[in-house]
Amino acid sequence: MASEEKPLVVVTCTAPVNIAVIKYWGKRDEDLVLPINSSLSVTLHQDQLKTTTTAAISKDFTEDRIWLNGREEDVGQPRLQACLREIRRLARKRRSTGDEDPPPLSLSYKVHVASVNNFPTAAGLASSAAGYACLAYALARVYGVDSDLSEVARRGSGSACRSLYGGFVEWQMGERADGKDSVARQVAPESHWPELRVLILVVSADRKLMGSTAGMRTSVETSPLLRFRAEAVVPGRMAEMTHCVRERDFQGFGRLTMKDSNQFHATCLDTFPPISYLSDISRRIVRLVHCFNAHHGQTKVAYTFDAGPNAVVFTLDDTVPEFVAAVRHCFPPESNGDKFLKGLPVSPASLSDELRAALDVDPTPGGVKYIIATQVGPGPQTLDDPHAHLLGPDGLPKPAA
Amino acid sequence: MASEEKPLVVVTCTAPVNIAVIKYWGKRDEDLVLPINSSLSVTLHQDQLKTTTTAAISKDFTEDRIWLNGREEDVGQPRLQACLREIRRLARKRRSTGDEDPPPLSLSYKVHVASVNNFPTAAGLASSAAGYACLAYALARVYGVDSDLSEVARRGSGSACRSLYGGFVEWQMGERADGKDSVARQVAPESHWPELRVLILVVSADRKLMGSTAGMRTSVETSPLLRFRAEAVVPGRMAEMTHCVRERDFQGFGRLTMKDSNQFHATCLDTFPPISYLSDISRRIVRLVHCFNAHHGQTKVAYTFDAGPNAVVFTLDDTVPEFVAAVRHCFPPESNGDKFLKGLPVSPASLSDELRAALDVDPTPGGVKYIIATQVGPGPQTLDDPHAHLLGPDGLPKPAA
Repeated sequence: MASEEKPLVVVTCTAPVNIAVIKYWGKRDEDLVLPINSSLSVTLHQDQLKTTTTAAISKDFTEDRIWLNGREEDVGQPRLQACLREIRRLARKRRSTGDEDPPPLSLSYKVHVASVNNFPTAAGLASSAAGYACLAYALARVYGVDSDLSEVARRGSGSACRSLYGGFVEWQMGERADGKDSVARQVAPESHWPELRVLILVVSADRKLMGSTAGMRTSVETSPLLRFRAEAVVPGRMAEMTHCVRERDFQGFGRLTMKDSNQFHATCLDTFPPISYLSDISRRIVRLVHCFNAHHGQTKVAYTFDAGPNAVVFTLDDTVPEFVAAVRHCFPPESNGDKFLKGLPVSPASLSDELRAALDVDPTPGGVKYIIATQVGPGPQTLDDPHAHLLGPDGLPKPAA
Repeated sequence: MASEEKPLVVVTCTAPVNIAVIKYWGKRDEDLVLPINSSLSVTLHQDQLKTTTTAAISKDFTEDRIWLNGREEDVGQPRLQACLREIRRLARKRRSTGDEDPPPLSLSYKVHVASVNNFPTAAGLASSAAGYACLAYALARVYGVDSDLSEVARRGSGSACRSLYGGFVEWQMGERADGKDSVARQVAPESHWPELRVLILVVSADRKLMGSTAGMRTSVETSPLLRFRAEAVVPGRMAEMTHCVRERDFQGFGRLTMKDSNQFHATCLDTFPPISYLSDISRRIVRLVHCFNAHHGQTKVAYTFDAGPNAVVFTLDDTVPEFVAAVRHCFPPESNGDKFLKGLPVSPASLSDELRAALDVDPTPGGVKYIIATQVGPGPQTLDDPHAHLLGPDGLPKPAA
């Protein structure tokens, strides 16, 4: 892909957001970003949420540079440097094995990177996983690396390694001190469970939350429950979740997803000083989901929460309209209702009187700002259309259209 | 005390509320009320919070009857029956040992009981501990029992056994299947730490909370973290807390009190479906306490929360005025300010600009309804003044004065 003849080698890739259903919380090695437990995630579809990254190398570039959402950022930050170092190490390694024609000398070339998200960072959706997965993927293409990219992405942001695959993905914690066996693997492809739907309930955060890096560190240092969870609870849950995914057992999948989200937040509360990512609105969503399921006598919807108040709700396609109506009932949209629902189209539905009565939640207008309806999706993609490049022939960001 | 000659034998006792600093959550035997871990509490002073109970026996009574806060209640409820059965068993046992003059035949007499709290039940303060401790104590007096009352009180409400003593009290979980070694013991008397103060921050609960009996059962059945806490965390914490109390080490006492409260609520969140007793106001109080301590560079105040949103704050006498001023700043009283503070007098104090800036909490008017200032207090008392009796010579509740 890279060539000495061209003055500029440029590739553009996209990568997805992933949502963990068995949560990652806590590192056993901060520097190598090695986790204290394995985790399992669902890759979301890039039609709704994705990062697009262009990487370009040229012998004419005098330094590495990066632009995020149009603004140049400090390329010297440690996580970014770790990714660049790692991809160049893999490129050198590939070369030295000599199993192909000697590749071009692009290794010494500096790189320019531009990256944008198709969703507002302000929505509080973890964008670092998609961002670093996309960076790793684009750098690999431009430097001609085709080995496992788990380590490159992981060094940027742990959960980014799970965004390297579509469908259902596990991040095996590994045992080695050097982290070589701490890698992401696909459990099932995106086509495996076509009925599965994902609703992101975006909630307004009223205050600054503790970042996950600092939060994890405090939890590892102070929570006795976190250590127990990692050692004694998660291994069994990984096996159980894998089984539920393979069998497409929504009830088992949903219950375990909720339990694991709750346990993650329990370890945050057991941290000292305690960390609270859930707001009262989050807790109202939790109650709404349990009321909804109790009304139906089965687990038809399941929530999970990351390091913020937004809920990610899993359900099957035939349940989406009624659940969205229930959310509208409990959190009446404050402004114009047509923007309340983004992403996949959802058929209108009305609530039965019985369900309405079963929803033991005081309506909270504006509590949910909007819903993004999406589904399981594929892993990173390379875009062939040169118009997709975020960097122009001069290696600088194109002016926004 | 009891006598065959008198037509009516009547005693009136008072008993205190206690607040656990190492929490009790989960029974290993529901029927005998045996806990899955030991716990440790502070007995609050009865000048501010107490239950008063009159018990009367007479050969003329045809049935056991009970009045709570002036209203007759069903005496057939299982916990009440367990207490009555247990006190009568102890009375029989004492008799059969024959180590004193044969006592009167009052054992066959029916009992009338009247009980009142000097604090509103609506305040959401756990009144069952004081209530059952007072019942056990009054029944013991009236039936002439002077053995350990832990089991009598415990059968009514587990934590009630800790209200049988003043000062600092541990409830040893015991190991025996029959619960004979699951008893309360005083760790230190109320005079041990005269500077210790207790502030109860009464918060408005916006919804019905799950009762602790049902909550504990669900937690024991579903939370993997609760089992670990009981087996692996609490034993060490009991020893550490006992040490902190004996040494009057406020920093250690306060930190461990907060950690144990947080861990209790973490196990509630790990319960399925999850239980949330803390409200956003509770969490604001948590942040206020951590900001206050961070500002002072040491643990000067410590919170603990039971199965509800009210905070109980421990501090030393010299810190009370400034902390109360901080609470007023963060939760400006909504109505007339003079009723905001009940109980022990608190000197007015103003906040320094530095502390005001350090309190990273948006003011929430009315978030704290009022504060009850109190201190460590003695165990149950017998009142000698016949005017204190809640039952008249006819064995029925006296009309309210």
